[in-house]
Amino acid sequence: MKKSLGIDIGGTKILYGLINEKGDVVSEVKKTATPKTAEEIYSTLKNIIDEYYTEIDAVGLSSAGAVNLENTRVLSSTPNLPDGYNKIDFSTLCDKKVYVENDANCACAAEYKNGAAKGFNTVLMITIGTGIGGGVISNGKLFKGAGGNALEVGSMKIFADKRQKCTCGRYDCWESYASGTGLKNCARTGALDYPEFKTSIYKDKHPDEITTYDITDGINQNDAYSIKVFEQWMEYMFVGLVSLTDIFNPDCIVISGGMCNFIDVEKLETKINAESVVTSVKVKRASTGNNAGMIGAGVLALE
Amino acid sequence: MKKSLGIDIGGTKILYGLINEKGDVVSEVKKTATPKTAEEIYSTLKNIIDEYYTEIDAVGLSSAGAVNLENTRVLSSTPNLPDGYNKIDFSTLCDKKVYVENDANCACAAEYKNGAAKGFNTVLMITIGTGIGGGVISNGKLFKGAGGNALEVGSMKIFADKRQKCTCGRYDCWESYASGTGLKNCARTGALDYPEFKTSIYKDKHPDEITTYDITDGINQNDAYSIKVFEQWMEYMFVGLVSLTDIFNPDCIVISGGMCNFIDVEKLETKINAESVVTSVKVKRASTGNNAGMIGAGVLALE
Repeated sequence: MKKSLGIDIGGTKILYGLINEKGDVVSEVKKTATPKTAEEIYSTLKNIIDEYYTEIDAVGLSSAGAVNLENTRVLSSTPNLPDGYNKIDFSTLCDKKVYVENDANCACAAEYKNGAAKGFNTVLMITIGTGIGGGVISNGKLFKGAGGNALEVGSMKIFADKRQKCTCGRYDCWESYASGTGLKNCARTGALDYPEFKTSIYKDKHPDEITTYDITDGINQNDAYSIKVFEQWMEYMFVGLVSLTDIFNPDCIVISGGMCNFIDVEKLETKINAESVVTSVKVKRASTGNNAGMIGAGVLALE
Repeated sequence: MKKSLGIDIGGTKILYGLINEKGDVVSEVKKTATPKTAEEIYSTLKNIIDEYYTEIDAVGLSSAGAVNLENTRVLSSTPNLPDGYNKIDFSTLCDKKVYVENDANCACAAEYKNGAAKGFNTVLMITIGTGIGGGVISNGKLFKGAGGNALEVGSMKIFADKRQKCTCGRYDCWESYASGTGLKNCARTGALDYPEFKTSIYKDKHPDEITTYDITDGINQNDAYSIKVFEQWMEYMFVGLVSLTDIFNPDCIVISGGMCNFIDVEKLETKINAESVVTSVKVKRASTGNNAGMIGAGVLALE
């Protein structure tokens, strides 16, 4: 069976290991700190590849940012990676195939090939952290769009009357309501609007200072305000997922990211199937965890 | 060059003609009334195919409704087509390849192959009539989803607070704001909300009785209320198109349907490119007109 070296280039660490065609990790997973300059990142990657060169058929790289259609470069500047990073031609790293792909797309491929979405036809992966990212794979092919930038689902608008400004400067982006940041926004709005705030354990906090963790803690303490804020947040999450279900007709939605453990996926699945106009969909939590980028990049490099 | 028989099965008429691989219509276009029963539709199609049998390599059928993944049946019941229509196995019509596809997807394929979107990579086609339909083709492949029902874009939600009920029974579907029906809804809401209604040429009409045509006529007569209603409708149209641009990263959006002549596509293109987070997109009006379904079905049958 063919093997690739899967490498996940993160803002703080680089994670790598050998991946086979089925998406299994077939070596120890190693990590190293992400260097501070583009030159050092390049030479670090070169050293990692040299270490495994004789064992591999290809190299797969997972990275933040939009990737060109040839899968050799990261086009956009990404806040967590250094200047000059988007000038690197990754195909020059070695004389075997080197394939770079956006991290959300890699995670989607990993879940499709060897994770929660194994065996499904059309997989919508939604990553809910500080923002919201997405990927779609259908019949084994990632949907990339004309410039490789598809699935910017965090920017989907869930209101049409300029109600809430997003950190991006636009209005009513889904991620300003339904991400981790969105939960904080729901908390602030709720502190002003909900009568339950007056008797909440957070009643003495300034609305701007209530955190995502306050709300998740508050739920555990049965705080009525926190519960109401979270329900509103889930409604916003749900509205976006129903739209995306009608748009992509997935048979599986995989949820990942920091916020995914707070979501009742069974309840969400029931609600989506009741509301969507297309045929039924499974909703699952991602299963490849921190290895998602590495596995997905490795698998894609072998295709 | 190979040729197919393209047949568009509409609610009132069946349109047909010979289509070559480039998507050119290479015969006279003929039409006949759509029969009232499924049996008669089947025998009418059989007779049409017999007439061209010796000249063709395949048959392409365009139809309303969702189509199975084998492209042999229409799965859903469609209001304008008779009972039993969804029981027809179109592959039994003749011993050459018979390929049935949803009409919105056929129109998308026609525009991509030989219409306004010729030469583009990723085409989003939006049909704005009584409702809103959509299709996406990327790298020559229609995006179908797991069950062939993708691109139900009319059901995308553009508000998340259950503001306006759609004819489908759900809330805040894009098509309840931005279709022909949506313009009527905007007119009614505007009659109640806008001070301009009091001096409008329609001030004596009941808000429920103002039609789509009243608004388009009113614009020509420089009626302030009609202009404001139309601007609100365009804003709803725009919000949905920006979301879909961020989701699909198309390099071309094609607008078709009864409402498309009222839209300033150049202005819409400028606005979408200013607001979208993905790379630039062209917005065009469809060019294959009434032949779209027939051409698209013919082209797809030859692939």
